[in-house]
Amino acid sequence: MCSGVRLLKQTDLVTTRYVTFDTDLRLESGRLLGPFTIAYETYGTLNTARTNAILVTHAWTGDCHAAGRHTLEDRNPGWWDNLIGPGKILDTQRFFIICANVIGSCKGSTGPTSIDPKTGRPYRLSFPLVMVRDMVHAHKFLLDHLGIGSLITVIGGSMGAMQALEWGIHYPEVTRSIIPIAGTGRTSPMSIALNAVARQAIYNDPLWKKGNYRSEHPPASGFALARSIGHISFLSDASMDKKFGRRFSVRDGLFDFFGQFEVERYLGYNGTNFVTKFDPNSFLYLAKALDMYDVSWNFPSLEEALSTLHCPSLWFAFTSDWLYRPEQTEEVVDILQGLKKPVEYHLIESEYGHDSFLVEPEKFTPYVVDFLNQIAAKQGV
Amino acid sequence: MCSGVRLLKQTDLVTTRYVTFDTDLRLESGRLLGPFTIAYETYGTLNTARTNAILVTHAWTGDCHAAGRHTLEDRNPGWWDNLIGPGKILDTQRFFIICANVIGSCKGSTGPTSIDPKTGRPYRLSFPLVMVRDMVHAHKFLLDHLGIGSLITVIGGSMGAMQALEWGIHYPEVTRSIIPIAGTGRTSPMSIALNAVARQAIYNDPLWKKGNYRSEHPPASGFALARSIGHISFLSDASMDKKFGRRFSVRDGLFDFFGQFEVERYLGYNGTNFVTKFDPNSFLYLAKALDMYDVSWNFPSLEEALSTLHCPSLWFAFTSDWLYRPEQTEEVVDILQGLKKPVEYHLIESEYGHDSFLVEPEKFTPYVVDFLNQIAAKQGV
Repeated sequence: MCSGVRLLKQTDLVTTRYVTFDTDLRLESGRLLGPFTIAYETYGTLNTARTNAILVTHAWTGDCHAAGRHTLEDRNPGWWDNLIGPGKILDTQRFFIICANVIGSCKGSTGPTSIDPKTGRPYRLSFPLVMVRDMVHAHKFLLDHLGIGSLITVIGGSMGAMQALEWGIHYPEVTRSIIPIAGTGRTSPMSIALNAVARQAIYNDPLWKKGNYRSEHPPASGFALARSIGHISFLSDASMDKKFGRRFSVRDGLFDFFGQFEVERYLGYNGTNFVTKFDPNSFLYLAKALDMYDVSWNFPSLEEALSTLHCPSLWFAFTSDWLYRPEQTEEVVDILQGLKKPVEYHLIESEYGHDSFLVEPEKFTPYVVDFLNQIAAKQGV
Repeated sequence: MCSGVRLLKQTDLVTTRYVTFDTDLRLESGRLLGPFTIAYETYGTLNTARTNAILVTHAWTGDCHAAGRHTLEDRNPGWWDNLIGPGKILDTQRFFIICANVIGSCKGSTGPTSIDPKTGRPYRLSFPLVMVRDMVHAHKFLLDHLGIGSLITVIGGSMGAMQALEWGIHYPEVTRSIIPIAGTGRTSPMSIALNAVARQAIYNDPLWKKGNYRSEHPPASGFALARSIGHISFLSDASMDKKFGRRFSVRDGLFDFFGQFEVERYLGYNGTNFVTKFDPNSFLYLAKALDMYDVSWNFPSLEEALSTLHCPSLWFAFTSDWLYRPEQTEEVVDILQGLKKPVEYHLIESEYGHDSFLVEPEKFTPYVVDFLNQIAAKQGV
C-alpha cells in the first residue's frame, strides 16, 4: 500500500443518473421540447432540511461528471474534482453537490443526437435551438424531481457562469447566491465571430452532410478544426508563449511546406482527439446558445434584467481572458453595484486566458470559501 | 465640371512594371530561386542625385499598387493612396516612391502561381518556402536595376514593418531610416496558431488537392474560411462592437439554425469575396513567411541582430492590436534604446486592432512627416 495515497473504494465511485420528464419544455424560441432527459451526478448527502445543495454548472463541451470516478480503473476523475470532494472547496461532507448536463449537449441530456419520439430517429438539425435560459429551465425540473427548493449557490465558469446568472434572475426563490466565473452578461461580436468560423469549419466538411453524418463517419477534419479555433480562444498569448514559444516540431524540417511549429502540432493533436469525445451537431447547437446569450433577452434593458437579481453574487474575471474579457464581467458588476445589489468582484491575475478558471482555481477559491461560509451560515448549514 | 474635384488626366495614371532577373536568388532555406520577376510601381520623379527614393513595403495580401489609378475608369486607387501623392505625407512632388510586390505573392512577382522554367508548369507546392528576408533580398535586385543606392526610408505596416526592419539590418549602406508600423521582431505563438487554423481550413477543402487545384475550381470554401480567420485577427473586439454589435441579420430568423449575426455575415461575405482576389497557395506561402519571421534568424540573439541596425527608426504600435501586440514592438524598441540606437516609438490609441494602420493613418502620420523631414534634410532633399 502506497503511503499518502488514499485507495479508492467501491463506495467512492460515482454514477451518472438520468431522469426523463414526460412533459413539454416551452423554449425561448416558442418551440416545445419533450419528453426530455437530464443526465446528472450528485456528490455528498442532502441534509434532512434539504438546505445544503449546491448546483455546479458546466461549460460548452463539459458534462455532468464533475467529480469522482466512475470505475476503479478510471484514470481521470471528473472535470472539477480538484474543487469537489470531502474537505475540498465544495466540501461533500457539508454540501450536497449536483451537476447536470445541459440540454443540447451529447453527454446524456436531450440534444441533437437524441431520438426524436415523433420520428423514432435522431433529431440532428431538427432539434430546436436552445438558449442558456432554456438549459436552466430544464434543470429546474431536475431540482423539483430531487425535491430541492433551495440552492446555497450556483457556481460555474464560462457557459456555467451564464447559467448561474440566469438561475439568480429567473429562480430567485430557489437561488441563495451565485458565483459566475469568467462569464459575461452577453457574448461579444468577437466571440460570435470566432464561433462563426468554427461553425463554418464544420459546414465546409463534406462529411457533415448538413448534420446527417453517419456516426462512424463524422466530419472529423472540419470538427477538429472547429475545436482548434475554439481552443485558441481559450488560451492566451502568454500561456502559449510559456508552453510552446516559437519552437519548431523536431520531427519536421523548418523549410518543409507541411512543417509545423509546436503550437500548431498541439492544436492539431487536440482537435483530432476531441472528435471522438463530442458530437459535431451538439457542438454547433451549444455554440449557437453561447452566441445568443444575453441576460437582457426579453427584458427591456440590461439594467432592468439585472435589477431582478436579488441574491448575493460573487464574480471572477481573469486578466488574460480575451474571449470573455474582464470588461464584460465588469459591465455587469458595475450595473449591479449601481443598483446597490450585494455583489463582490475579483479580477484575478492569471496568464492562462479563458481557461484560467480551470488551470489556476487556487487563485480564486479562497474567496469562494469565505463567500460560501457566509451564505451557508444564513441557511444554518 | 464638378468644383472641388480634380479631374483625372491620362498623365496621372500609373502602370505596374515588371522586371525579370535572370539569376538565382539564394534563399535562406539554401534553395535557389531563379529567374525571378518583381512587379513594382513608382510615383514621383527620381532626382538627379538619386537621393529622394522611399520604399513602401506591403502586407500579407497586399500588392505593389500602392497609389494612383491604373485606368481612368478605376473606381479605387492603390491601397495607400491616402498617404502617397502630390502634397500628401509621402509627397510625390518631393520623393520618388517605389512599391514592389514580394516574392511568394500572386500579384506579379514570382510565386507559386508562376511558371517554373524547369518544368514549364506552375510551381504550386514545389515553390520554395521564402522568408521575409528573402523578399527583401529580391527587392534589392530591383533597387540595383533602378540605379538606386539610397533610400530615405523604408515604410510599411505588418509584414511591411518586418521588411523595413530587415532592410535596415541587411542593407545599412542603402537604408537611411526605417518606419515599421504595427510590426514585431518575431511573430508570437498566438499568431502562428491563428495562421495554423487558417492553413488547415484550406487543407481541409477537397478542392485544394495539395495545391493542385484548377484555377477555375479553387478551394473556395476553405480559402474563404481561412480569410475570415485572418480577418478576425486584424480587427478588435471594440471595432466589431462599434460596427456590428450583437445585431442579427434582418434577413434571418433568430431561431433559424443557419441564421446569422451581422458580424458573421460580414466575415462570410468578405471571405467569399476574397477568393477571386488572391491565390490560396500564395496565401499559404506568405502565412508561412509570417510564421517564420524572426529578425534574429541566423543571429546568435535578438539583441545581436538589433545591434546591427544603425539607421534611425520610427516605430508605431496600436493599443487594440492583439495580433502583433504593442508589447512585441516594445520588446524591439526597448532593446534598441538599451543599445543607444536612434529610435522613436509611439503607441497610438486606436480601436481598430491590427488594421488601425490602414484605418486611422492620421493618428500617426504627423510623426512620419517630422521624422521624414529630419532624414530628408540630412540627404539634402
